[in-house]
Amino acid sequence: MSKYPEPANKLINQLSRLPGIGRKTAQRLAFYILKSDDLYIRNLSEAINGIKRNILFCDNCGIMSEENICHICKNNDRADNIICVVEQPQDIYAFEKTNSFLGQYHVIGGVLSPLDGVGPDDLNLEKLYRRVKTGMEIIIATNPSIEGDTTSLYLAKILEKLGAKVTRLARGLPVGGDLEYMDELTLARAIEGRTKI
Amino acid sequence: MSKYPEPANKLINQLSRLPGIGRKTAQRLAFYILKSDDLYIRNLSEAINGIKRNILFCDNCGIMSEENICHICKNNDRADNIICVVEQPQDIYAFEKTNSFLGQYHVIGGVLSPLDGVGPDDLNLEKLYRRVKTGMEIIIATNPSIEGDTTSLYLAKILEKLGAKVTRLARGLPVGGDLEYMDELTLARAIEGRTKI
Repeated sequence: MSKYPEPANKLINQLSRLPGIGRKTAQRLAFYILKSDDLYIRNLSEAINGIKRNILFCDNCGIMSEENICHICKNNDRADNIICVVEQPQDIYAFEKTNSFLGQYHVIGGVLSPLDGVGPDDLNLEKLYRRVKTGMEIIIATNPSIEGDTTSLYLAKILEKLGAKVTRLARGLPVGGDLEYMDELTLARAIEGRTKI
Repeated sequence: MSKYPEPANKLINQLSRLPGIGRKTAQRLAFYILKSDDLYIRNLSEAINGIKRNILFCDNCGIMSEENICHICKNNDRADNIICVVEQPQDIYAFEKTNSFLGQYHVIGGVLSPLDGVGPDDLNLEKLYRRVKTGMEIIIATNPSIEGDTTSLYLAKILEKLGAKVTRLARGLPVGGDLEYMDELTLARAIEGRTKI
């Protein structure tokens, strides 16, 4: 026998489907779980079971929420003439941590990617179009990847027609970065986007 | 808000207790699980719940089994005058994969480690002593660490008194290793243990 007992094998197979978890890591995790106390095993398994059941997505903007309308959409202190469009619900936490954006969000749930069969109809766009009002600013904060850029160009065209002012995040040097090790594309974007001191 | 909704937070906390899983990885896993289909979520949570319930440890040698006595202890084709002593149940799969050991195993369940408060009474040693017969060979296959070596010296003394021939695994260069990058201790052990060609 070089095979683990079936219950161990089953867990290893399930764990190795997780992103970034290979077979060896899955084995290590499985044996750790096997040696854990019952309380931890129950808590872990319940947390996994519960996450999908207990998390709702805001009907308006699509971010994670425990209610139908999230506390950001409900919050009257936040500007309602600026919407930051992000790919995934978890992206908004990165913005919220900066404390420098006090507008609304909209989650489109992915990027256009013809190769993966993802077209405009697969994204949460209709609701976004309905939220846009003339004169509103829309920041398109898709990831700085090819698909992200394509999606932002596609959206910009439509949103401008709806009367919005469309912007995107600045491209340039990350704070704390080292010029010597910066990739060419980032440096090229930093030169293009140079600003007056 | 820079905090995730409670069900997400809960899962992230549970996942980040796993070995080698930091907070960021736990977040990535949690959001992957959130986006997974219900079937996968159910399977994963059941596999976690089931592993401890469905895996038994052999009454005789301590390896993982789905019965009270494992198939290695039951197997009459395997030599019964040689026992390989390992730290953890999963260690035996490494030996089984080599196809070059056809004796018995014994899992002691850890190593002596006074700093962590692990003494001889905390290990599965009594059963091992009872299995030893005069003239038997005991291979002590603890990990090549300080605690592993201490444990093997401790065991060797007792087992020799019980009449066993005690051996340990060879220390030297791993196959495919590169002399240039070998650490001093491994190289020193390889010189000490040199054999005639």
